[in-house]
Amino acid sequence: MKPSLPIPVAVLGATGTVGQRFIALLDKHPWFKVVALVSSEKNVGKHYAEAVHWLLPSPIPDWAREMGLKSAEPKAIDGAVIAFSALPSDVARELEPKLAERGIWVCSNASAFRREPDVPILLPEVNAEHIAVLDEQKRRRGWQGGIVTNSNCTSSGLTVALKALDEAFGLQKVFVVSMQAVSGAGYPGVASLDILGNVVPYIGGEEAKVEWEPRKMLGKVEDGGIRLADFVVSAHANRVSVVDGHLVVASLAMRNPPKNAEEAIAAMENYMPPVIARHLPSTPSPVILVRREPDRPQPRLDATTGDGMTTVVGRVRPDPIWDLKFVVVSHNTIRGAAGGAIYNAELLVSQML
Amino acid sequence: MKPSLPIPVAVLGATGTVGQRFIALLDKHPWFKVVALVSSEKNVGKHYAEAVHWLLPSPIPDWAREMGLKSAEPKAIDGAVIAFSALPSDVARELEPKLAERGIWVCSNASAFRREPDVPILLPEVNAEHIAVLDEQKRRRGWQGGIVTNSNCTSSGLTVALKALDEAFGLQKVFVVSMQAVSGAGYPGVASLDILGNVVPYIGGEEAKVEWEPRKMLGKVEDGGIRLADFVVSAHANRVSVVDGHLVVASLAMRNPPKNAEEAIAAMENYMPPVIARHLPSTPSPVILVRREPDRPQPRLDATTGDGMTTVVGRVRPDPIWDLKFVVVSHNTIRGAAGGAIYNAELLVSQML
Amino acid sequence: MKPSLPIPVAVLGATGTVGQRFIALLDKHPWFKVVALVSSEKNVGKHYAEAVHWLLPSPIPDWAREMGLKSAEPKAIDGAVIAFSALPSDVARELEPKLAERGIWVCSNASAFRREPDVPILLPEVNAEHIAVLDEQKRRRGWQGGIVTNSNCTSSGLTVALKALDEAFGLQKVFVVSMQAVSGAGYPGVASLDILGNVVPYIGGEEAKVEWEPRKMLGKVEDGGIRLADFVVSAHANRVSVVDGHLVVASLAMRNPPKNAEEAIAAMENYMPPVIARHLPSTPSPVILVRREPDRPQPRLDATTGDGMTTVVGRVRPDPIWDLKFVVVSHNTIRGAAGGAIYNAELLVSQML
Amino acid sequence: MKPSLPIPVAVLGATGTVGQRFIALLDKHPWFKVVALVSSEKNVGKHYAEAVHWLLPSPIPDWAREMGLKSAEPKAIDGAVIAFSALPSDVARELEPKLAERGIWVCSNASAFRREPDVPILLPEVNAEHIAVLDEQKRRRGWQGGIVTNSNCTSSGLTVALKALDEAFGLQKVFVVSMQAVSGAGYPGVASLDILGNVVPYIGGEEAKVEWEPRKMLGKVEDGGIRLADFVVSAHANRVSVVDGHLVVASLAMRNPPKNAEEAIAAMENYMPPVIARHLPSTPSPVILVRREPDRPQPRLDATTGDGMTTVVGRVRPDPIWDLKFVVVSHNTIRGAAGGAIYNAELLVSQML
Repeated sequence: MKPSLPIPVAVLGATGTVGQRFIALLDKHPWFKVVALVSSEKNVGKHYAEAVHWLLPSPIPDWAREMGLKSAEPKAIDGAVIAFSALPSDVARELEPKLAERGIWVCSNASAFRREPDVPILLPEVNAEHIAVLDEQKRRRGWQGGIVTNSNCTSSGLTVALKALDEAFGLQKVFVVSMQAVSGAGYPGVASLDILGNVVPYIGGEEAKVEWEPRKMLGKVEDGGIRLADFVVSAHANRVSVVDGHLVVASLAMRNPPKNAEEAIAAMENYMPPVIARHLPSTPSPVILVRREPDRPQPRLDATTGDGMTTVVGRVRPDPIWDLKFVVVSHNTIRGAAGGAIYNAELLVSQML
Repeated sequence: MKPSLPIPVAVLGATGTVGQRFIALLDKHPWFKVVALVSSEKNVGKHYAEAVHWLLPSPIPDWAREMGLKSAEPKAIDGAVIAFSALPSDVARELEPKLAERGIWVCSNASAFRREPDVPILLPEVNAEHIAVLDEQKRRRGWQGGIVTNSNCTSSGLTVALKALDEAFGLQKVFVVSMQAVSGAGYPGVASLDILGNVVPYIGGEEAKVEWEPRKMLGKVEDGGIRLADFVVSAHANRVSVVDGHLVVASLAMRNPPKNAEEAIAAMENYMPPVIARHLPSTPSPVILVRREPDRPQPRLDATTGDGMTTVVGRVRPDPIWDLKFVVVSHNTIRGAAGGAIYNAELLVSQML
Repeated sequence: MKPSLPIPVAVLGATGTVGQRFIALLDKHPWFKVVALVSSEKNVGKHYAEAVHWLLPSPIPDWAREMGLKSAEPKAIDGAVIAFSALPSDVARELEPKLAERGIWVCSNASAFRREPDVPILLPEVNAEHIAVLDEQKRRRGWQGGIVTNSNCTSSGLTVALKALDEAFGLQKVFVVSMQAVSGAGYPGVASLDILGNVVPYIGGEEAKVEWEPRKMLGKVEDGGIRLADFVVSAHANRVSVVDGHLVVASLAMRNPPKNAEEAIAAMENYMPPVIARHLPSTPSPVILVRREPDRPQPRLDATTGDGMTTVVGRVRPDPIWDLKFVVVSHNTIRGAAGGAIYNAELLVSQML
Repeated sequence: MKPSLPIPVAVLGATGTVGQRFIALLDKHPWFKVVALVSSEKNVGKHYAEAVHWLLPSPIPDWAREMGLKSAEPKAIDGAVIAFSALPSDVARELEPKLAERGIWVCSNASAFRREPDVPILLPEVNAEHIAVLDEQKRRRGWQGGIVTNSNCTSSGLTVALKALDEAFGLQKVFVVSMQAVSGAGYPGVASLDILGNVVPYIGGEEAKVEWEPRKMLGKVEDGGIRLADFVVSAHANRVSVVDGHLVVASLAMRNPPKNAEEAIAAMENYMPPVIARHLPSTPSPVILVRREPDRPQPRLDATTGDGMTTVVGRVRPDPIWDLKFVVVSHNTIRGAAGGAIYNAELLVSQML
């Protein structure tokens, strides 16, 4: 029995850059209605419009402006069925399990639980079947609800492209270098004195995530957990002077490499997501767009493709050492954060509730 | 017998971004005195200050302001012993051999002759001995002078670091991704509408150069030519919103890999250039600087190290697939262009004249 | 008798930055259907998608991709009732009158005819009644069609704000300083080496336009021409590192100054456009938005307000020398160019055809 | 009796962006030797190199690297004759008088005491004679030392230009609009999400300073205080995407206006600073540089003129409402902060000690 629409949801960490994306994307969402906004202690009691340093070109939705901010306690979101979490990792680690225990479905952008074997890192167009491990959460942890996560923003678009190629050719080794937008670091985040006319070749913790999360996302459900996929990743993470949109370049070695770039392009263009992830409100359209121009994709021009949910690939060409080189752009605060978590929630609703 | 100082030199392509660097670096050079400036036809007859769109924070040197611009013909630079060339490749292909024939030593930043077996791509701190192939130029082509080149700007700093590591550990495979400054594209070069808040993951012809030129620079003189070094390179070239300073990230596989990052760092810090390249006016000091901060080098802060001639390395760490990862920054219009060509000329003067 | 919909239109100068905006804004326009695209000689015969360096995040509309480009001759646009012109001024000066003669209504972004007394510079929400001078075009020049222009991009949003204040308080003196986006200079336009991390305090011809065009737009129709409004403007024009959206700061002296900032804000918030300009498809909604935050409007956040047609004002406060200070942001290639010209065309269709 | 060289000095607020400039400029200063570095409580006990997030392209001087940081108490700087203060205003308000009381000469960049009638805002090339009010500090406050300040960074270069024009033509009204670099806001200061590809038309408190401080700097010493000069200023302050260098555009009304731009240019080019400020180590050379190119000065190209101490003016032209328009660029953390305070100290040493 499906819950009746709209489904009441909460946004945790509502004033940050990802929280703002949640608010903007949930405005007019066909299934969800925001009933609670949670923020840090200093904002509790304020109206949303008063507390937020709103950074999006679209205005704050009217329903959000006057909504009062609540503290990070379970009872603050009573009445919500789903909680979208853009909490800092340490706060997430404490609050999210309490919510799951009380029957809330937590769709989290935080990294706190991504390494737990029974917590999936979901990309519905890639690994919708990973929601099966939620049974294990119930069994082992006794939760009435559950926690699903989305990956770090750099891995998300990349992993969609890797999935299509893995399916067709069998991934072995992946070399990736990211050029990441400043919005990925939140607000105030990156100081302008650090990044104006500059590149910072370091983002704390990011390389370890990019070397591990794609392997879990492309892994298999096994014994109530997820077995990592059998390929290795080497990552270099860099911050560049871009507002939104992460660009990643990649070189791949594959088990049965494509004969040429066209074969690889075809694999990506023809990639079919799992059936249960194909017709949700946030399903990207297309899932992967392969551009043929020599100089695309670019973050400023391509990150918003498919309302920011499409993975945009380009410059697919042979690699002189391994097999294939390409470039991928995806929107870090939409596909890589808030939009991804909402897509995850849609999958949960359609399969679990 | 050494020529008496100062040695008269010409600058070809004097009004472009690299030409401007030549003018600025030759101002007060202890050995060289500019006697002729060559520019494109439309500027001939104008004073330098009138024709140039000067883009450096330091002012145009007084001696250059009133110097008249000449056309790209051999007789325009009569009296010069050395010609620094920042010509477009097609003009260089035609003019440079005519100058070499007349006894001029051409130190060229153009790519026109880099692939010729008897034309060295010089980095004095790396391969000073490659000037030996100039004998072959004389023998085979009958030139009284000769042509030496410097590499494309992305390969230069990278190859200095690779040299130190090759010597110590034996390079096998090199994966590199560049994030290149806009000054590398000349003026007007990159349109602001293309690069503001953006990354362009494509620079025409650059990847092929970066995959080949380091192999020649680290090669051996053999039978009057240069045998390519025995390693392979895969390159991705990107343009970023930076004014000066190319950043390159690299992952390496090596024959006898260092036991840890410190061993690799030591190899770079202790690297000794060829004796004949150690005490020239433009010898970088230090040749390689290895920074220990987690987030360095950065183009805006580090490209001008050692007056823009030092190769700055950082983030030396193990690579999860191969052996070593690191980041290198060098100044693209100094070490990677005008400053490199002047250093080459100093080597020629000290060895050949 | 109204023409039947859709009305066939042509875009002149279709591949430039303003031409691209025309294509994007005319896609799905309720009244207009593009039947011809005109470009410079070198592109004639090519398909639009082949010739254009498309710079907008939204994709090229499908109908435009395969449309063939035609040369700048009257017969190229046979069948069009309206021609949107984003031509360079010299081409516009020659072609636009020929089109007007043949009965075409030219809505031009070019500056060529703005100084002609019988050619209006239209801002429908400000001076819709200026279309009356089209009678004079017919009478004096014998044209079957006509030419209307929009102002330079810096004057447009500014003049909307000035209109509301002039009506309420009587303008006397206006001091304005612009900080203009690079898209206003077309493509390739401003070189990245000139503007990255920089301000260029000069835009050729712009200050003269900003000192004159608002006076014409706020003038009165008189004897078949337009008498300039009786105030003076002093302008400083600057280029800044912004992609889209011109910011202008202004100080005003007025005949009957408002008692305080709130009175000035009220005049702008309550401003009513001419009746005939209130219900057209491109009428901005709202016409003027006054923001109360201390640090708004900002180009990146506010230029797209009201689909880029709204004039956004902020920081309304007393001026210590004259009467009032404020900041205005408007979208330079939408409200200030293509969107403005389309709004002008809608006014023509509703009043003249 | 002059103190023997070198004179021991302290830097207060040594780790901030202005503090870093003090360290860099005092390295190799002919008169001063740093004996103490003061920082906020959390850094006390750390070495300078460990505590600072160094943001300048030149390296941290060796003598500074290992210097221990001290707390903001008078005894921390025992032995220093001069204290350069880059303290936050509230800390300055408390500490600086205690130092002055103990005989220290405080050269402060903080705004805390600028409004006190007996505390001069010094620009030695403009108002060196204002040091006379230090007698009043002694008399009234009983200080053995004293406090002198430099102006906010936006007023400094502007006021040098205004001085030359006031002397020649008599200032009446000044309209100024600033476009300010991010380094003026310290570190982390302006968030990159706020300023990338954007303009922020607001800087808290800045406009009030720019409307008042130039009047004090151009005022007269009278009855132991400084009488404000008799002109009015209206200011708009904006933050732009520039690292270093404030650009200000100005329009002026004058009592005896110059006949043309050349006369105004001559007044600036021929401006002679007070005799006692002409031959100090930091005296700018030239004091004012007037550029004739149509598009200069620009912050990235011109802010470092004269080692960052010169005031660079350009675009001098008639104003259609008042008399004169021009553009001025000066280096905000050198002429407008650390370099200015050092110049002030040199004046004190030469006149008072």
